[in-house]
Amino acid sequence: MRILFLGDVVGRPGRQVVLQHLPRLRREWALDFVVVNGENAAGGFGITEAIYDEFLEAGADAVTLGNHAFDQREALVFIERAPRLVRPANYPPGTPGRGAALVEAQNGARVLVVNMMGRAFMDPMDDPFAAIDRELDAGPLGLVSDAVIIDFHAETTSEKQAFGHWCDGRASLVVGTHTHVPTADHRILAGGTAYMTDVGMCGAYDGVIGMDKEEPLRRFTRKIGSSRFEPASGPGTLSGLAVETNGAGRAVRVAPVRIGGALDEAVPAFW
Amino acid sequence: MRILFLGDVVGRPGRQVVLQHLPRLRREWALDFVVVNGENAAGGFGITEAIYDEFLEAGADAVTLGNHAFDQREALVFIERAPRLVRPANYPPGTPGRGAALVEAQNGARVLVVNMMGRAFMDPMDDPFAAIDRELDAGPLGLVSDAVIIDFHAETTSEKQAFGHWCDGRASLVVGTHTHVPTADHRILAGGTAYMTDVGMCGAYDGVIGMDKEEPLRRFTRKIGSSRFEPASGPGTLSGLAVETNGAGRAVRVAPVRIGGALDEAVPAFW
Amino acid sequence: MRILFLGDVVGRPGRQVVLQHLPRLRREWALDFVVVNGENAAGGFGITEAIYDEFLEAGADAVTLGNHAFDQREALVFIERAPRLVRPANYPPGTPGRGAALVEAQNGARVLVVNMMGRAFMDPMDDPFAAIDRELDAGPLGLVSDAVIIDFHAETTSEKQAFGHWCDGRASLVVGTHTHVPTADHRILAGGTAYMTDVGMCGAYDGVIGMDKEEPLRRFTRKIGSSRFEPASGPGTLSGLAVETNGAGRAVRVAPVRIGGALDEAVPAFW
Amino acid sequence: MRILFLGDVVGRPGRQVVLQHLPRLRREWALDFVVVNGENAAGGFGITEAIYDEFLEAGADAVTLGNHAFDQREALVFIERAPRLVRPANYPPGTPGRGAALVEAQNGARVLVVNMMGRAFMDPMDDPFAAIDRELDAGPLGLVSDAVIIDFHAETTSEKQAFGHWCDGRASLVVGTHTHVPTADHRILAGGTAYMTDVGMCGAYDGVIGMDKEEPLRRFTRKIGSSRFEPASGPGTLSGLAVETNGAGRAVRVAPVRIGGALDEAVPAFW
Ligand SMILES: [Fe+2]
Ligand SMILES: [Fe+2]
Ligand SMILES: [Fe+2]
Ligand SMILES: [Fe+2]
Ligand SMILES: [Fe+2]
Ligand SMILES: [Fe+2]
Ligand SMILES: [Fe+2]
Ligand SMILES: [Fe+2]
Repeated sequence: MRILFLGDVVGRPGRQVVLQHLPRLRREWALDFVVVNGENAAGGFGITEAIYDEFLEAGADAVTLGNHAFDQREALVFIERAPRLVRPANYPPGTPGRGAALVEAQNGARVLVVNMMGRAFMDPMDDPFAAIDRELDAGPLGLVSDAVIIDFHAETTSEKQAFGHWCDGRASLVVGTHTHVPTADHRILAGGTAYMTDVGMCGAYDGVIGMDKEEPLRRFTRKIGSSRFEPASGPGTLSGLAVETNGAGRAVRVAPVRIGGALDEAVPAFW
Repeated sequence: MRILFLGDVVGRPGRQVVLQHLPRLRREWALDFVVVNGENAAGGFGITEAIYDEFLEAGADAVTLGNHAFDQREALVFIERAPRLVRPANYPPGTPGRGAALVEAQNGARVLVVNMMGRAFMDPMDDPFAAIDRELDAGPLGLVSDAVIIDFHAETTSEKQAFGHWCDGRASLVVGTHTHVPTADHRILAGGTAYMTDVGMCGAYDGVIGMDKEEPLRRFTRKIGSSRFEPASGPGTLSGLAVETNGAGRAVRVAPVRIGGALDEAVPAFW
Repeated sequence: MRILFLGDVVGRPGRQVVLQHLPRLRREWALDFVVVNGENAAGGFGITEAIYDEFLEAGADAVTLGNHAFDQREALVFIERAPRLVRPANYPPGTPGRGAALVEAQNGARVLVVNMMGRAFMDPMDDPFAAIDRELDAGPLGLVSDAVIIDFHAETTSEKQAFGHWCDGRASLVVGTHTHVPTADHRILAGGTAYMTDVGMCGAYDGVIGMDKEEPLRRFTRKIGSSRFEPASGPGTLSGLAVETNGAGRAVRVAPVRIGGALDEAVPAFW
Repeated sequence: MRILFLGDVVGRPGRQVVLQHLPRLRREWALDFVVVNGENAAGGFGITEAIYDEFLEAGADAVTLGNHAFDQREALVFIERAPRLVRPANYPPGTPGRGAALVEAQNGARVLVVNMMGRAFMDPMDDPFAAIDRELDAGPLGLVSDAVIIDFHAETTSEKQAFGHWCDGRASLVVGTHTHVPTADHRILAGGTAYMTDVGMCGAYDGVIGMDKEEPLRRFTRKIGSSRFEPASGPGTLSGLAVETNGAGRAVRVAPVRIGGALDEAVPAFW
């Protein structure tokens, strides 16, 4: 299978670059499955139903979230009728929505999409290592699912790398999100799981993690905020990871994707 | 000038890959100035005088540090006789050593090397934004110095990006260190400063930020440690940033460097 | 001198209990100097000029603040014309207002009031230990000032106790604020400085640190907020510390003050 | 029932003051049940079997722990044969020992003792709010147990107060531990649960949370440690909470206990 994962879409510049390129990439690369992290799609904070629908129409098969999942309070409601919208699985029991979804790809393959949050320097959710074991036991790769895609939304490189090793051999890919900067350590781990510490954001990189830089700089230097955070203007960059899996759902090829905006372009050579 | 910055050298695998490649790169790429972050060089924790000397002999012009600067207590002493060893400038006044050094390159150029620590999710040092202003006022690019190299040792992508923008136009390059994972967002900012959120580590990537993965995984999953952290074994990867500056000390070309070990290779196409 | 320090006034229940008792206590106890921490006086978040004036009229000689100092943005302006309003001294240079004030008591004594913020588990301000040295050098007890009152606004007991020892012998009293719970460890340290880890809040104790308990409980248990924090209703408790100093500005007697509301009453036996 | 809870015993000064007073108090106050938090009993870090036995002989019915539970690695082993030693219940499944124990008092009453850790500014354990529900469902007050004693080992006053309200009506008492400073907010909540944000430590208060002050001060001011933490010398203070319950296991009287050392003495007037 040909899988594309796109990192946190931040505000309008992020949505625009996704809508501009994803339909074409889906076609040209003959993508089988696309996941987009949408936790910052609505002005940098959360997601609306209209944006979720827009992502599906543009070619996403599933949308994942993170610590900003419910910043737009309508998400607490519409997530129940949005079967391809996946919020972190380690929210407390009773949280609206789902932390994992078994989604049918257009080619009929069953893809398990799991979203999970880290706890280092983040709000303490339920144990992500125990929670992913439960999810992987419920939808094991090769038995219930043809591919397993895990979005680990976390702050530190150490927790992300530990989580990648923990899942190695049980997932097709584990990608980190949340830091909004792509890392250059994409690779296939020993057990056949594609891994990248952070896939970066889809958004305007000439700012501070996708937001206009004035307010963050003010807070860092003066310790007093003066306004809300707003997404940075300027052209967005599409940022993500391309993974090709074999019949057993293991990754056989992996390459970063970066198109447009401020970063060096990267596209998979193998498609 | 041709400048190479190498990220946190972690333990023996890190030292080996530096010693193996740096002398050759220095020669083949006709490097004018090389900086190595050595905060994890001694078994993952701090640096010894012997290792510092080894780095200089291998082709480093300066060595920077970070939160692990003084893990080896001998560093509190030998740093005073090690003029090219630079610890974070925002330690309290009276800390042994120096936070910035004006180092003469082999070609006679004067290069200001500054090390600074971030504060987000780290021990609260003095304000890095105020401190860098003082350092840059004391050794301004183009007047006192021909190049300014800033190692911003910090945890979060937001503080690092804010710091890069803050220094833009006043430094030849601002590179992040500390997370031990290279980012793919190397670029030249609007004011002519090369920037990369993290240059990654020189060390074994098949672990958890350069350390053997067993103990970190145990602590994440069981919340009880059982032994010390040890550097991961396996081949090391050299990871850093190549920057070419013009006569005014501004960056004109920038490219990541990754050689050996587990990551995709990257070398500057322009040298 | 007879000094009364009252802890963080939280919302209307806090203001009411201060206005109800302070004028009487000032008279009955023949107080020479009263300081009130007002960082949460306006609905739990910051302070307005009207409230500041109200505190002075009720018998306060000075008002201190904390991390919520500028939650009401008007404070950035009126603090400049409010000479007895003191915000943390370790905000960056250029912050409106002052971090220390030499205030003349009604009996003519000169009282140095300093406000400082801790950094453990708080936003990293400038080093409070270095900053208090500067303030105490500028207004030394017995020379420039007849009494020195330090409000150390901090989270952890360890940083507060360390700070108390650091100031011991150089201040009449060091009181902690911010946690909104009075501690029972009031005492006079070896050098003659009265100390109490936290003086507690003036507010309604049947909540969560003075706020209505529903929203905090929701956030702790569900990890998703659903509304703003609002001050708890119910009767407020006045909470603070009574200190008597000698001619040299050293503490000779110390006792907690708790009047009204949910806590055990405490008043100094010596007045 | 007459219940005494003693806070974190820190090193030798803490053990000495417990051994000196507890046997006498047990007798004189006709105590029915005594719990001691022993997480810092062994030189400030963890507990040994010898110390555990010593506490039982001195009159403790149960010993609770906290984040330092397993600092002495022998505790991982002997806790299995120490039925009255209770470690935080929200460690991951599979952790040695137990998080709750139904202990028979000398008078035959069944007392449920639960230890739990908070997560705010602490290592992220399992959700303490969900975990306490499970424990209280398994040993409900008045049915399975005649009294329920909860030691909530946590950093912030907000999480502790929220936890107290959460348990109100389902426990005889909820006391906070970990900050090593007694609070003055002991009271009986609306549902009949005695509550105190922190019971303080049994140890030498002329230090920094029970440890000699030199090393903590050095780390706060110089940001470089130079030695291990050692318990403060000097006389210890016994610190805890006295609670009397009725036949339904609800608290009817509550008073702080502070004997010896640096703090104001407090003993229950009602015994
Ligand atoms: Fe995000
Ligand atoms: Fe996020
Ligand atoms: Fe490092
Ligand atoms: Fe570091
Ligand atoms: Fe406050
Ligand atoms: Fe505060
Ligand atoms: Fe403790
Ligand atoms: Fe503790």
